[in-house]
Amino acid sequence: MIYLDNAASTKPFKEVQEIMCYVMENVYANPSALHKQGFLAENLLKESSMFFAKQLGCSKEEIIYTSGGTESNNLAILGAINAYKRNGNKIITSNIEHSSVKEVFTYLEQQGFEVIRLKADLDGYVSLEELENHLDGKTIFVSIMHINNEIGTIQPIEKIAELIKRKNKDTIFHVDAVQSFGKILVPKKNIDLISISGHKLYGPKGVGILYKNKNIRIVNLFYGGGQQKNIRSGTENVYNIVGMHKAGEIVFDNLNKYKEHYQKCKNYLQKNIENHISGIRVNSAVDGAPHILNISFKDIRSEILMNVLEKNDIYVSAGSACLTHKKSKNILSFIGVSEDYVYSAIRFSFSYETTIEDLDKVVNVLIKEIPKIRKVNNGGK
Amino acid sequence: MIYLDNAASTKPFKEVQEIMCYVMENVYANPSALHKQGFLAENLLKESSMFFAKQLGCSKEEIIYTSGGTESNNLAILGAINAYKRNGNKIITSNIEHSSVKEVFTYLEQQGFEVIRLKADLDGYVSLEELENHLDGKTIFVSIMHINNEIGTIQPIEKIAELIKRKNKDTIFHVDAVQSFGKILVPKKNIDLISISGHKLYGPKGVGILYKNKNIRIVNLFYGGGQQKNIRSGTENVYNIVGMHKAGEIVFDNLNKYKEHYQKCKNYLQKNIENHISGIRVNSAVDGAPHILNISFKDIRSEILMNVLEKNDIYVSAGSACLTHKKSKNILSFIGVSEDYVYSAIRFSFSYETTIEDLDKVVNVLIKEIPKIRKVNNGGK
Ligand SMILES: Cc1ncc(COP(=O)(O)O)c(C=O)c1O
Ligand SMILES: Cc1ncc(COP(=O)(O)O)c(C=O)c1O
Repeated sequence: MIYLDNAASTKPFKEVQEIMCYVMENVYANPSALHKQGFLAENLLKESSMFFAKQLGCSKEEIIYTSGGTESNNLAILGAINAYKRNGNKIITSNIEHSSVKEVFTYLEQQGFEVIRLKADLDGYVSLEELENHLDGKTIFVSIMHINNEIGTIQPIEKIAELIKRKNKDTIFHVDAVQSFGKILVPKKNIDLISISGHKLYGPKGVGILYKNKNIRIVNLFYGGGQQKNIRSGTENVYNIVGMHKAGEIVFDNLNKYKEHYQKCKNYLQKNIENHISGIRVNSAVDGAPHILNISFKDIRSEILMNVLEKNDIYVSAGSACLTHKKSKNILSFIGVSEDYVYSAIRFSFSYETTIEDLDKVVNVLIKEIPKIRKVNNGGK
Repeated sequence: MIYLDNAASTKPFKEVQEIMCYVMENVYANPSALHKQGFLAENLLKESSMFFAKQLGCSKEEIIYTSGGTESNNLAILGAINAYKRNGNKIITSNIEHSSVKEVFTYLEQQGFEVIRLKADLDGYVSLEELENHLDGKTIFVSIMHINNEIGTIQPIEKIAELIKRKNKDTIFHVDAVQSFGKILVPKKNIDLISISGHKLYGPKGVGILYKNKNIRIVNLFYGGGQQKNIRSGTENVYNIVGMHKAGEIVFDNLNKYKEHYQKCKNYLQKNIENHISGIRVNSAVDGAPHILNISFKDIRSEILMNVLEKNDIYVSAGSACLTHKKSKNILSFIGVSEDYVYSAIRFSFSYETTIEDLDKVVNVLIKEIPKIRKVNNGGK
C-alpha cells in the first residue's frame, strides 16, 4: 500500500514498538509507587522529560504529559484562560486552527469572552498587522498554530511571539505545534505553551505533551492523585510516553535528513502533477511544510478521487481527518479559495518511508483516472 | 522479584504486548480517516466497544474511551453535574473514595455545591441508612466506588443503586469500578456511569472507559474533532484500546479461576501472618475483594516495612500509590481505625501470577524482620 496520509497519523517506528513491549514486560509498576519498581517507572518519565526539554530548550519541569494533541490544546487554552481571566476578556486565535483549538474558542465565546479570529491570506498566513491592531492591555491569550494540518503553511511563530510580548508582556502565547514538532524546529522564545502529539511523529496515539513555561499558571482539567505537580492527575501513560520518547530520538537524530526527504517527495509529486494534469491548484504555500502537499483537482470532488486512489491502494486525505465528525468546512473556504477548488482538495502527506516509486505510481493513477472522472458525470459535481 | 502491588498497577499480558505491536505495524491510520485504512482502525475500536458492552450488558454506543480511570471519574462527575446542575445543588459521595473522585468533589464544593460525604464503618462500608436519609429531590448526583483500592471493601452497589433510584429516579449514580472491573462482576442495573481503567486489568496504562447510560447527558471536558460522538474529542488511543480489549478478553475468560486464585493467595497470606506475627490488625473486611489484603503491623511505620521488604525484592504498598503526591490521609483514618494501626498499614495485592512460594517467602521475611524492627528504636516511631 502507498500511505500518504501521514499528517493524519504515522506508523510507529519498529523501535517504538520494541521499547514499549520491553517496558511493559519489565517496568510496569505505578510511577507513583514508593518502592524501587515505582522509582524505575518514574525515572523513565524523567528521562523522557529531559529529552523533550532538551529539544525544546526548556527544563524538564516544564514538560506535562497528556493524552494527545487535543488534550494539550484544551489544557493550554482552558487552563491558562481560567487562570488569568481576571486580567482581561479578549482572546485571539486564527480562522485556520485545528478543531481542537477552534472549538475551545467557540466554547469560550459562548462563555462571554471576546474572541478575535485572525483571517489568513490565500497562502494560509495570518496577518501580523491585523494581529498587532488587536493586541492590547486586555488581551490575555493568543493561540496560533505552527504548521497548518491541511495545507502546511508555516506561520512565522517567532515574529508573532515577539510582537505579542512587545505589545503586552503579560499576554500568554500558545502554539499548536502538533504538525511541526519533529518535522522542523519549533522555536520557544516568547512562547508560553506548546502542544505536541505522539502519533504525528511515528510514536503511539493517545499521548502528547504540553510545554508550559514555569512562570505561568494554568488551571487543571482533571482533579485527582496530584501527578505531574497536580497539573495533570492520572497514572502516567508510561509505555506511550517512552514510545513517544523513542520516536522523538529517532526523528531528531534524522531531522534534516527526513526534512530533505519530505521536501524531495513534495517537490517531485507537485512537479509531476503540474506537468501531467490540467485544471489543478496547488493550495500549499511555496515555503510550506515539507511533508504536506495540498492540491485541488478541478471538477472532481475530493471523496471521489480519494476513492479511486483507494482502489489502487493509495491512501490520502481530503482536508483533515478531524473534519470527519463535524460538518465543518475545510480551511480552503476560509482563506478565500474559489468554490471549485475547495471541494476538490486532496492532501498528500509524506513519511520517511515514502519512495519516488510510490509517487510515480500515484501520478500514473492520477494521469489515467482523472480524465475518466472528469468525463463521467462531470466529476460527480 | 515478588510483586504484590497489583492494585497500583499490573503487568500487561504478553498477548496485550503482542497485539499492540501488531496493530502499530498494520493498522496505524487515523480512525477518523475516510479511507479503508481508517475504517480498519475504526473497526478495531468498534470491536473493542462491542466486547466491553457485552461485559457490562450495555450497547456499544455507551462505551466512551478515555485516558484512564482518573479521566473517566472526572468526565463522569464534572460532565453529569454540569449537565444537570439546574435540577439541584446536592451531591453525595463517600469519605473513602479514590482521590480522582474525592478531589473532584472538593472542587465542586468550592464551586458552591452542597457535598455530602457518607462515612464508612470500620470495615469500610458506607451506611445505606445514612445515604437514604440524605437522598432527596434536590440530589442530582451520587458517586460511590465499587471496590475500595486501599482495603478492598466491596460496596453493595446493587442495593445502593436500587435505593437511589427508588428515592429519586432522576438522581444520577456513578460507580468507580476501577478496582473491580475484571476482578468481580460489575452490576449495571440502575447505574448511569461506570469508570474503568486498563492498567488494573493487565492492560496498558493511560487508557480507560466510561460507561455512560445513553439516557443521560454529560458535558465534555475537551473540545475538538468531535470523536466519540463529540463526548470525547481527540484521536482515539487505538493501540491502548486494543490492548485493553485483549486484556479484558483474557481476564473475563478466566474470571472465576483468577478470583479463586486471588482469594487463595489472600487467605493463605492472612492465615500465615495471623499465625506467626503478633500485634497485627487485618484491615480488609472478611468478604472484601479477593485481590487486596491490608494488614497493619503495630509499632512499625509502613515505609519502614516497605523498605525492608524491598530489600528482599518484595514490592507492596502503604495505602495507595495515589496518595504519593498529596499529603492526604489514608482511608484507615477515616473509618476509625486507631492511630497505631493507621500508620503501620501494608497493602498486599495479588496477580494471577502470584504463587504460594512467593507468599511463603514474604511470610518468612516478615517473621525474621518484624521482631528486629520492633526492637530497634521501637519501630522508628
Ligand atoms: C494541528 C493539529 N492540532 C491538534 C491535533 C490533535 O492531536 P491528537 O490527534 O493527538 O488529539 C492534530 C491532529 O489530529 C493536528 O493536526
Ligand atoms: C479506585 C480507583 N479509582 C481510580 C483510579 C485512577 O485510575 P488511573 O490510574 O487509570 O488514572 C485508581 C487507580 O489509580 C483506583 O484505584
